[in-house]
Amino acid sequence: MIIIGEKINGTRKAVALAIRERNADFIRNLAKSQGEAGSAFLDVNAGTAPEREPEDMAWLVTTIQEGCDVPLSLDSANPRALRAGLELVKNPPIINSVSGERPRIEGVLPLALEYKTSLILLALDDAGIPGTADGRMKIVDRLVGLATAGGLAEEKLYIDPLVTAISTGTDSALITFETIRKIRLSYPRAHITSGLSNISFGMPLRSLINRTFMAMAVHAGLDSAIADPNDRGLIETMTAAEMLIGKDRYCQNFNRAFRSGKIG
Amino acid sequence: MIIIGEKINGTRKAVALAIRERNADFIRNLAKSQGEAGSAFLDVNAGTAPEREPEDMAWLVTTIQEGCDVPLSLDSANPRALRAGLELVKNPPIINSVSGERPRIEGVLPLALEYKTSLILLALDDAGIPGTADGRMKIVDRLVGLATAGGLAEEKLYIDPLVTAISTGTDSALITFETIRKIRLSYPRAHITSGLSNISFGMPLRSLINRTFMAMAVHAGLDSAIADPNDRGLIETMTAAEMLIGKDRYCQNFNRAFRSGKIG
Repeated sequence: MIIIGEKINGTRKAVALAIRERNADFIRNLAKSQGEAGSAFLDVNAGTAPEREPEDMAWLVTTIQEGCDVPLSLDSANPRALRAGLELVKNPPIINSVSGERPRIEGVLPLALEYKTSLILLALDDAGIPGTADGRMKIVDRLVGLATAGGLAEEKLYIDPLVTAISTGTDSALITFETIRKIRLSYPRAHITSGLSNISFGMPLRSLINRTFMAMAVHAGLDSAIADPNDRGLIETMTAAEMLIGKDRYCQNFNRAFRSGKIG
Repeated sequence: MIIIGEKINGTRKAVALAIRERNADFIRNLAKSQGEAGSAFLDVNAGTAPEREPEDMAWLVTTIQEGCDVPLSLDSANPRALRAGLELVKNPPIINSVSGERPRIEGVLPLALEYKTSLILLALDDAGIPGTADGRMKIVDRLVGLATAGGLAEEKLYIDPLVTAISTGTDSALITFETIRKIRLSYPRAHITSGLSNISFGMPLRSLINRTFMAMAVHAGLDSAIADPNDRGLIETMTAAEMLIGKDRYCQNFNRAFRSGKIG
């Protein structure tokens, strides 16, 4: 699994405070712990204050890179903030994200094409999240078409099927699974990623629901997740799930994770 | 999920001893705890001593039924032991099991047809467990054909796709999932059951592997399991998995299980 570490996110109170106070140690520790836990990318979200976001993003990118070599996922809808980050990144980044929403297509997609970044594509548009897999695929097809026509290889795309809460619809998870299967069939070289925890919104025992959902989503074709790499239960389920779908020859990865104390 | 409680099994040391000593309290407690935990059936296996098995089976059935109304799954390859149990059961039982092995077809299947019981069908034959889903389906097709031609309704069949250890083959789980999907397509009214724990044989963290495998198997179409209904982790995963595949309207069953303390 390609884990995109989710914790450096300015919409979380402690992170917002660290950004405001320029608390570099706090940010570097978040980067370090997520990197050591096996993140392939670190998501960097500078928060929601539009006027300060470019400067905050630049500070975050610089600060993280002083102590950590993990590539970054620049998480913003603000083209100026994204460009500020893109100018500073040392390793090939992901942009998080483009959707079928007009401002994202007009403002964010061109940056991904200009800098040849990897790119997260969300299956929603100005009308919201479609309630069917076919509706989501229409948006995905359009976005993949725009990205590849603009010169991005399919391998650089991280397609997010989106997840709505099971508490608001009995078929929420089924729609996500069906969308994943359709993405896998249509775009075999693209990655499929998601922040899965929306599934359990409004429910008790969220981590139980999240890890059960994760197992099923990996079975359907998910190969990446925007998640907390220090969430041991989730990492355990991911490691077991990848082994069970035949991606862990001789169970080497599972046994190594067990012996090193990463799981169990 | 239709849980077939697995604990009254004479191949387990403590149960073998209780059978030998005619310790009725021990057996009744196993029956009671499994019934209260939600078993739809209780598996009854009298152990491996052929000369004593019919008498032991009769004693077990009588003893269990003195304190418990849960239907029984008569678990034996010995036609005499099965008949001894069939003559005593109060509620419609399952016979566990017929396979493509000649002695089972000749000795066990006729009893299921005579007594019109439910019946577990194993996807193996005299040559062992086929290494492909198609190989397993050939056996399943033959057994379903024999059972339905003999008058058993498809609803009474519990088909076991079989599970081999992931430690002995990278594609072990994938073959089981594919077999489950094929069974579900071919026999939409039949049940699909399995003792899933073979998957983790020879591995560390068996309960992690078992519950992750369970989530995926439910996603593929499994609707029953031969399991320990007091294994809280497994029941939690089953409850979450059924909710996620759309079988728990308004999340009522999950929330009820949480409020009653059965999960969480």
